[in-house]
Amino acid sequence: MENPTAAMVVIGDEILSGRTQDKNMHFLAGALSEKGIPLREARVIADDNATIVSTVKALSKIYTHVFTSGGIGPTHDDITADAIAEALGASIDVREDARALLQAHYDRNGTELNAARLRMARVPDGAILIDNPISAAPGFTLGNVHVMAGVPSVFQAMVASVLPGLTGGTPLLSESLRVNRPEGELAGPLGTAAETYPDLSFGSYPFIREGVFGANLVVRGTDETRLAEAVAYLRDAFPDAA
Amino acid sequence: MENPTAAMVVIGDEILSGRTQDKNMHFLAGALSEKGIPLREARVIADDNATIVSTVKALSKIYTHVFTSGGIGPTHDDITADAIAEALGASIDVREDARALLQAHYDRNGTELNAARLRMARVPDGAILIDNPISAAPGFTLGNVHVMAGVPSVFQAMVASVLPGLTGGTPLLSESLRVNRPEGELAGPLGTAAETYPDLSFGSYPFIREGVFGANLVVRGTDETRLAEAVAYLRDAFPDAA
Repeated sequence: MENPTAAMVVIGDEILSGRTQDKNMHFLAGALSEKGIPLREARVIADDNATIVSTVKALSKIYTHVFTSGGIGPTHDDITADAIAEALGASIDVREDARALLQAHYDRNGTELNAARLRMARVPDGAILIDNPISAAPGFTLGNVHVMAGVPSVFQAMVASVLPGLTGGTPLLSESLRVNRPEGELAGPLGTAAETYPDLSFGSYPFIREGVFGANLVVRGTDETRLAEAVAYLRDAFPDAA
Repeated sequence: MENPTAAMVVIGDEILSGRTQDKNMHFLAGALSEKGIPLREARVIADDNATIVSTVKALSKIYTHVFTSGGIGPTHDDITADAIAEALGASIDVREDARALLQAHYDRNGTELNAARLRMARVPDGAILIDNPISAAPGFTLGNVHVMAGVPSVFQAMVASVLPGLTGGTPLLSESLRVNRPEGELAGPLGTAAETYPDLSFGSYPFIREGVFGANLVVRGTDETRLAEAVAYLRDAFPDAA
């Protein structure tokens, strides 16, 4: 079987305006790597129906899974659920199971399930609800698209609800070495290592810390033994590596 | 004249693997908003030639400006410059002006301009160099594509070099109010405000802080007077707003 793949769509005018820094992509990327479902691309797009529809339609055909964040709350600018339904050709309305979840939650808290809140029970036909242990309003999975909230704590809880149910692939293992030397000095031996171990991938991620130029060298692959060999090779080439 | 628009392409396996959290998108988004060049979308893609070529080709046709980050260093995995040249149909080789910049920098530091470092002088024909006051290796602008480093301090310095030369649009003004009430209570009046001021955009960005549900309400528009009216309207609807 081919390894599963994933894409993420961050629906967020507030990210694009520079008002808010997205945190969900980084969280999801790490969780998917551990699961062996590599994140192949991520897009941040505007809260715009046509953009959401075309983006989700395109990505859901390319990748095993698409994860979205944002736009499933009770306000007028929360348009994600309807856009996802349109993208995948499903009908959408207030669904009884989602309404019951919300009703129970608001009853417990003594608040009213008003018209705005009822919008959060709009779920496409055929979708499976994603549990939201924090604020009850569910996410949902429709086809291969997992629709989740934008608030980081809720997003993370929903990821924790969804991931165990997905089939993971061969986990990508990685090892990293930090070398406090400028990349220009590391590039030669690193390139040779990449040629010597063509089944592994070698990345160099430079940094400048307190005026010191250095790089994190990362080797990735699925075979533990080969990875250990390559790391030994790099340690030999860079005896000063941490 | 139509307002200029922008897209960003983050070239970064290390972001997609969850190893590193991108910081450049948030910085660029804020800088572009101030300049009146709204960021319309951002994509994080893999360090893969075909992916970079097709992404940059597509986005450079849609937006006034495309900004890229990452992949212009001296190591074998730094493939951005060649990919951008291919995307825009330019030829690329070591360019004398870029080589001279690097030579002067390394002479000052007493280090060698070796073969790896010389890769950083590969710049497409017709591109304008972007100044890098931190580590000398330049970025470049080719057509409407601005190619910059991934290291945040260098990226930020390059943005500061590029932005003053671009024509800005009408700056989008914004005002925000924080209301410590759940979105479900705010949605009704907020939706009415959005209908009352159709020339402005109203966003609600929920948060959960120490167990308290609240939302930041953001109004955006280009007319200061209308913005002030809308804010007064919201303060009237939400007298408890901060």
